[in-house]
Amino acid sequence: MRPRRIKNQDEIINESSYIIEVSDKYKGKLHELFGNNNPIHLEIGVGKGDFIIGMAKKYPNINFIGIEVQDSVIVRAVKKLNQEELTNVKLMNVDAKKLNDIVDHEIEVLYLNFSDPWPKKRHAKRRLTSEEFLKIYDNIFIKDAHIIQKTDNIGLFAYSIEELVKHGYIFNKVSLDLANEDIDNVLTEYEQKFMKKGERINYLDAVKFKDK
Amino acid sequence: MRPRRIKNQDEIINESSYIIEVSDKYKGKLHELFGNNNPIHLEIGVGKGDFIIGMAKKYPNINFIGIEVQDSVIVRAVKKLNQEELTNVKLMNVDAKKLNDIVDHEIEVLYLNFSDPWPKKRHAKRRLTSEEFLKIYDNIFIKDAHIIQKTDNIGLFAYSIEELVKHGYIFNKVSLDLANEDIDNVLTEYEQKFMKKGERINYLDAVKFKDK
Repeated sequence: MRPRRIKNQDEIINESSYIIEVSDKYKGKLHELFGNNNPIHLEIGVGKGDFIIGMAKKYPNINFIGIEVQDSVIVRAVKKLNQEELTNVKLMNVDAKKLNDIVDHEIEVLYLNFSDPWPKKRHAKRRLTSEEFLKIYDNIFIKDAHIIQKTDNIGLFAYSIEELVKHGYIFNKVSLDLANEDIDNVLTEYEQKFMKKGERINYLDAVKFKDK
Repeated sequence: MRPRRIKNQDEIINESSYIIEVSDKYKGKLHELFGNNNPIHLEIGVGKGDFIIGMAKKYPNINFIGIEVQDSVIVRAVKKLNQEELTNVKLMNVDAKKLNDIVDHEIEVLYLNFSDPWPKKRHAKRRLTSEEFLKIYDNIFIKDAHIIQKTDNIGLFAYSIEELVKHGYIFNKVSLDLANEDIDNVLTEYEQKFMKKGERINYLDAVKFKDK
């Protein structure tokens, strides 16, 4: 669902200090955006920003970059961020397909939260854990590939496991009921709704070792 | 679904040379049943026997043991086997919970085909990939644990992956559409039906290394 446009949307996005312009300017030197050498985590599809903002507050010594393709969505994250003073979050209004133009072997962890499940088989390539995307991710990680995914959609979840295995990943953790696990978890907007309804969230933590 | 009783069921079962009596007599020396030292594979829930019979014909140098708890089901496998002359198949009419009384570190591969999904959460322990069963399986494998599962039930499939990861397994292969994979596959009775209807079969091949 694409939310309605917010008034002055483009100005809000363009004028925020949290927004990085889409360019290859920082490729391979994303740490310059933060002025330190702390590890960098990436979220694809930040939505309204609750996860990345929560994570940034909780982990001040980790830098977070969030990308989001929909400007009518990212603007809401920007508005929330504008209320905060966080030096360890940056957002980019860009499609994940373009990641290799922007990032080069500098990410420690990738978060995929409640991504579009694209349930139709002919749209499978668009799922953020398709082979196409996993190949893109191969070039974003500083060393071992490390993906953490949350989703309410069991179809997407099983598909992700299938693709990750095919691509050489192994699992640190797989759970069909995240709320019941002893996992340090920051909720997304979706997740808060699901939790209220008592619905279960699927979770996986997968790695692929660099020297494999 | 429990099929109707076949006339003379007990006699058919008890008199077949393919049936091993339920006892600890061969525990740790299952190879004596076959008179050779070929690797032994185990199927839990042989159903009407199509899989184990097909496998035994295809792989004469592997010994197959199948267990099945329902006598009204195993009798159908026995009747089929009685039409064959196979020296590398034995069946046992026993519950998988009793495996440790019968088998001791001598199985190379365990097959779980279309096991009962026990969809209700309070019945989760009964699923053949619950922690309870995985602990039992720990003592049946000759070296590395190796489980191959097929199921049409995505709930059971995801649950299995979750439990296997928790128990230290990694995946050689995970597929949501076995028919589309280049995997050597012998069909079960269920599978033949599903295939005809064009339904997809989930498949996993998981190992746990002994020295881990």
